[in-house]
Amino acid sequence: MNIRTEIIAVGSELLLGQIVNSNAQFLSQQLAELGLNVFYHTVVGDNPARLDQAIEIAKKRSNVIIFTGGLGPTKDDLTKETISKKLGKQLVFDQSALHSIEQYFSKTKRVMSENNKKQALVIDGSYILKNDYGMAPGMALQVDETIYMLLPGPPSEMRPMFQRYGKEYFHNILGLQDRITSRVLRYFGIGESQLETDIQDLIDYQTNPTIAPLAAEGEVTLRLTAKHKEEKEANMLLDEIEKKINERVGEFFYGYEQTTLFNELNNLLMEKGKTIAAAESLTGGMFSEKVTALEGAGLVFNGSIVAYTNDVKQSVLQIDKHILDTYGAVSEQCAKEMATQIRKLTASDIGISFTGVAGPSKQEDKPIGMVFIAIAMSEDNVKVFHLNLAGSRNGIRVKAVKYGCHYLVKLLKEIE
Amino acid sequence: MNIRTEIIAVGSELLLGQIVNSNAQFLSQQLAELGLNVFYHTVVGDNPARLDQAIEIAKKRSNVIIFTGGLGPTKDDLTKETISKKLGKQLVFDQSALHSIEQYFSKTKRVMSENNKKQALVIDGSYILKNDYGMAPGMALQVDETIYMLLPGPPSEMRPMFQRYGKEYFHNILGLQDRITSRVLRYFGIGESQLETDIQDLIDYQTNPTIAPLAAEGEVTLRLTAKHKEEKEANMLLDEIEKKINERVGEFFYGYEQTTLFNELNNLLMEKGKTIAAAESLTGGMFSEKVTALEGAGLVFNGSIVAYTNDVKQSVLQIDKHILDTYGAVSEQCAKEMATQIRKLTASDIGISFTGVAGPSKQEDKPIGMVFIAIAMSEDNVKVFHLNLAGSRNGIRVKAVKYGCHYLVKLLKEIE
Repeated sequence: MNIRTEIIAVGSELLLGQIVNSNAQFLSQQLAELGLNVFYHTVVGDNPARLDQAIEIAKKRSNVIIFTGGLGPTKDDLTKETISKKLGKQLVFDQSALHSIEQYFSKTKRVMSENNKKQALVIDGSYILKNDYGMAPGMALQVDETIYMLLPGPPSEMRPMFQRYGKEYFHNILGLQDRITSRVLRYFGIGESQLETDIQDLIDYQTNPTIAPLAAEGEVTLRLTAKHKEEKEANMLLDEIEKKINERVGEFFYGYEQTTLFNELNNLLMEKGKTIAAAESLTGGMFSEKVTALEGAGLVFNGSIVAYTNDVKQSVLQIDKHILDTYGAVSEQCAKEMATQIRKLTASDIGISFTGVAGPSKQEDKPIGMVFIAIAMSEDNVKVFHLNLAGSRNGIRVKAVKYGCHYLVKLLKEIE
Repeated sequence: MNIRTEIIAVGSELLLGQIVNSNAQFLSQQLAELGLNVFYHTVVGDNPARLDQAIEIAKKRSNVIIFTGGLGPTKDDLTKETISKKLGKQLVFDQSALHSIEQYFSKTKRVMSENNKKQALVIDGSYILKNDYGMAPGMALQVDETIYMLLPGPPSEMRPMFQRYGKEYFHNILGLQDRITSRVLRYFGIGESQLETDIQDLIDYQTNPTIAPLAAEGEVTLRLTAKHKEEKEANMLLDEIEKKINERVGEFFYGYEQTTLFNELNNLLMEKGKTIAAAESLTGGMFSEKVTALEGAGLVFNGSIVAYTNDVKQSVLQIDKHILDTYGAVSEQCAKEMATQIRKLTASDIGISFTGVAGPSKQEDKPIGMVFIAIAMSEDNVKVFHLNLAGSRNGIRVKAVKYGCHYLVKLLKEIE
């Protein structure tokens, strides 16, 4: 059976932009893992005529239709009423759901209004999905080759319901054999279009695993997805293609799955038993903030000096006035001195510095986006990196911090 | 003209659940403010045949169709190709967009691959929406009573494009009469439910303007929305209700619209001609990062010391060992000393310090969420604030930084 899935979220609050459709995202991830193709998301308001039309359209193009929302007690909640009518089915009380609703009200000593009972109504003949965190049960049924699944709107109810009961329903009714295994590879320092160009032939000719690139905030990720019966076999397929990809762009690879450059940095510092400190001008404390956002930062991070003005660069960071006068604060020489000084002042193994022009105006007659990052690995081993970054003031700062982290990761990996 | 709007987001990454459709939420909010009804959201993958079908459906039920995504340089980006074909229009190069793309590459000294040029292609005869933060321009055109607008996918590009150029296009082409004027009031230091309780009667009985509360990250905002033909009249309505609200909760009010506590702080420092510096332990540089995120920070912010370890507190910040030994780093005494020291070391008018326990574990046997903030307004005027904050590690850090800013704003306002 060739599965074409559509997710229909019902709720005027989505169309007013009061909430974001996180249910569609969650279900899409879950369905991708099951190996079911999702071809459409639709959002429609609490309006029976428009919902009816949306179902009509979905029936023609999809054979699995998952609804979220509109199962609650209010007059606006019309999902199951509209679907049952469309399918020519009756709504009947589910005794077990009715019982839990009554219990809930007697337990919380609240008076049950009549419309709460409505939540126990289900489409006749449907398979009931228990709601462990709320009152309205979900349901699923197959009519003329099309599977309909109705889930509640609140994510706290919908998510566990789908994971505990919805997934299993699909496994059984579709007799799913293949499981999907995916792996995310993360890259920094290479643009999306460059990375794609470098591996275009692999993207084009690979069908299992598939390769999907995605770019965000200067980083590029590749999602590899393999279909298989055995997990071991899938992992072999993933290993193989990962190797092929990284033979070409491996120098930009930094980690797997949800990791970040800062996680990698933190892990490497821990592993190599090194401490670090930062001297920040351009980045105003952002590097330090990112490092200390992680638990256990205290073991590897000593501290930093945010030397925003030249006075503080001299007085606190003790940068030689001669360097500032001769080369300026935005210079290779100043970056080098900053990294050396912070390493010494905080008695750290490694010192890193950031200086540059974030904008909105030039500085020392140097252009916006000019950035110097220096890393002092020891007293006499100080490397300087010169970047020309594009973007907004904040974009330049964010990229500078990520580049700093990227260089540190590279240098740490080289340590025996 | 009876407007029926549909938002079509194009991108397989949405159908795989890799990202959430925040563009649809943002546009829905914006369109609601313009008074345009949104009846559908649709998401479709990077597949020309399915996108073509989605357009066919949208044409029948909507007369304003807004697309997001698929304007980029890769082979997957097919939105304008598909729409232009559907509408029987040519794609032509927009010279101004082409020029900016070439400039971007020459500025960043990167090699421009041929597919980047594709981003400057636009549908013949369309109105161009400038992209101030990226390469692909947006466009809008009307064909047979239907308005089509194409916007880029990355929110950092799409949002400003719609706000700066897209909105105005709709105002002009639809001849919108009633303008919606809204005003956002921002509060800090009062919980959402407390604020709502205090003004419940106003929320319930006001219809023009309406009052909508929203809470995020420890702040509460009220959005007042007035409908009217004349801007002056609307502003009078807004003034009136604002006055009523702030008679009750004015002590927690800090600013309007998109301002932040940090904008207010920056403005006040500028206005009073004061400079500031920070000593951060708990917050790891976050306060400094927030202050320096604003343009012109160099005029009011000197720098900071992130003294994460006790060694750095002693060596760089020069905190008396006796204080650390006797009271610990998380103490009123240490906070006071930190604020005094940073003020002195950086020769600033004001020094602020942050020390506390962010978790995940206790520190010095002090509970998670215990926070001390000290503000040295002069040598002998040092105020200490003691907070017990709830939340995650990051939540505690964010709230601490906001409270620090809130206290500074209060103290600065008291200065003659």
